[in-house]
Amino acid sequence: MKRAVALASGGLDSSTAIALARKQGFDIYALSFDYGQRHRFELKAARRVMRSLGITHHVVETIDLNVFGGSALTADIEVPKNRDPGRISAEIPATYVPARNTIFLSFALCWCEVLDAQDIIIGVNAVDYSGYPDCRPEFLEAFERLANLATKAGVECKSRFQIHAPLLHMTKAQIILAGTEAGVDFSLTHSCYDPAPEGLACGACDSCVLRRRGFEEAGVADPTVYR
Amino acid sequence: MKRAVALASGGLDSSTAIALARKQGFDIYALSFDYGQRHRFELKAARRVMRSLGITHHVVETIDLNVFGGSALTADIEVPKNRDPGRISAEIPATYVPARNTIFLSFALCWCEVLDAQDIIIGVNAVDYSGYPDCRPEFLEAFERLANLATKAGVECKSRFQIHAPLLHMTKAQIILAGTEAGVDFSLTHSCYDPAPEGLACGACDSCVLRRRGFEEAGVADPTVYR
Repeated sequence: MKRAVALASGGLDSSTAIALARKQGFDIYALSFDYGQRHRFELKAARRVMRSLGITHHVVETIDLNVFGGSALTADIEVPKNRDPGRISAEIPATYVPARNTIFLSFALCWCEVLDAQDIIIGVNAVDYSGYPDCRPEFLEAFERLANLATKAGVECKSRFQIHAPLLHMTKAQIILAGTEAGVDFSLTHSCYDPAPEGLACGACDSCVLRRRGFEEAGVADPTVYR
Repeated sequence: MKRAVALASGGLDSSTAIALARKQGFDIYALSFDYGQRHRFELKAARRVMRSLGITHHVVETIDLNVFGGSALTADIEVPKNRDPGRISAEIPATYVPARNTIFLSFALCWCEVLDAQDIIIGVNAVDYSGYPDCRPEFLEAFERLANLATKAGVECKSRFQIHAPLLHMTKAQIILAGTEAGVDFSLTHSCYDPAPEGLACGACDSCVLRRRGFEEAGVADPTVYR
């Protein structure tokens, strides 16, 4: 089995991307980040999702993004609530974390190089979050290009790094249907940006709004417990 | 004064790059990494060099690269000693840390975005370490391209990120002469990969070999205390 490093947030998207990559035959090395996020509860979800998918290699890397701030997820900035899905997709919201996916992918690249792996799995999506700079296809292509210049394996032309973003052009409803088919137990996942301490979802942040609508559109029962 | 984020290792190169950028008029925000490096002593050097240059903004970010390993600086792998300078420049040595500069630059990009800065200073050099993939001009260009796609500022076309690598094509001797002129106190810097606990340089690792030869070629007295 070919090894791949996968970013695992514990959310609906990354869990589905990982389940799809596993179905494709990849041996998954999951990577999560404790970055000082407001919704640190997602790490608990990431652990239980990885366990439920039978993924035994799972590293939680601790980094400090609070020291830089600049986001509603890492600083004392209010999380936007009850926004219209149309507006969510058109704007870069306060929950955008500067350079977050660049940082996450860099660590994934490091682990890949050590594992002698060439594949990185990321659950980004350009439909619902079309305003996020680091969820766009051109960003992923630029990172792939960088990866092949940044590494020993790249210099020695032994291999080509590849970023797999299987959800890039899917709607939330399509992701939910694909994840269900691939065996993701969505009751274990966590999406809310602003949960109660015990992990109960707020139901009103952008992430909750899109998740809820996704289940409705997919015609799948929403297992999320809202507070 | 224009703000810039600068990578500060406490070594001869980054200290010189920072002193040159300061002379150019940049307001420096220095960024160092406690990444589990064998020569963690360099952080002490980074703090004293920044102090001596009058730089008050200095963040030391703690990340764990030991969990991935794969380098003589982060795992239980021997540091090469007494190698010929010609061989040092031709090979990717065991002290290469997978994706390290990609990770460091990603954090710098995050801080830049929060500070509303567009400039990143890095002391990489492609002469002595021509084998290092992430010290090459093409790597820096690819990162610059990525930075402009990865960020809110990039999407909004408000600004263009720029990576400044003023030492890229300089020899170690030229760097020492430039640093001396720019007011770097090299006795405060640390280069050794394998120091004694109190920071005394081994004199035999690649970094010591190149540093020592650099001072000789520059005709500048070497202030390094070798054990």
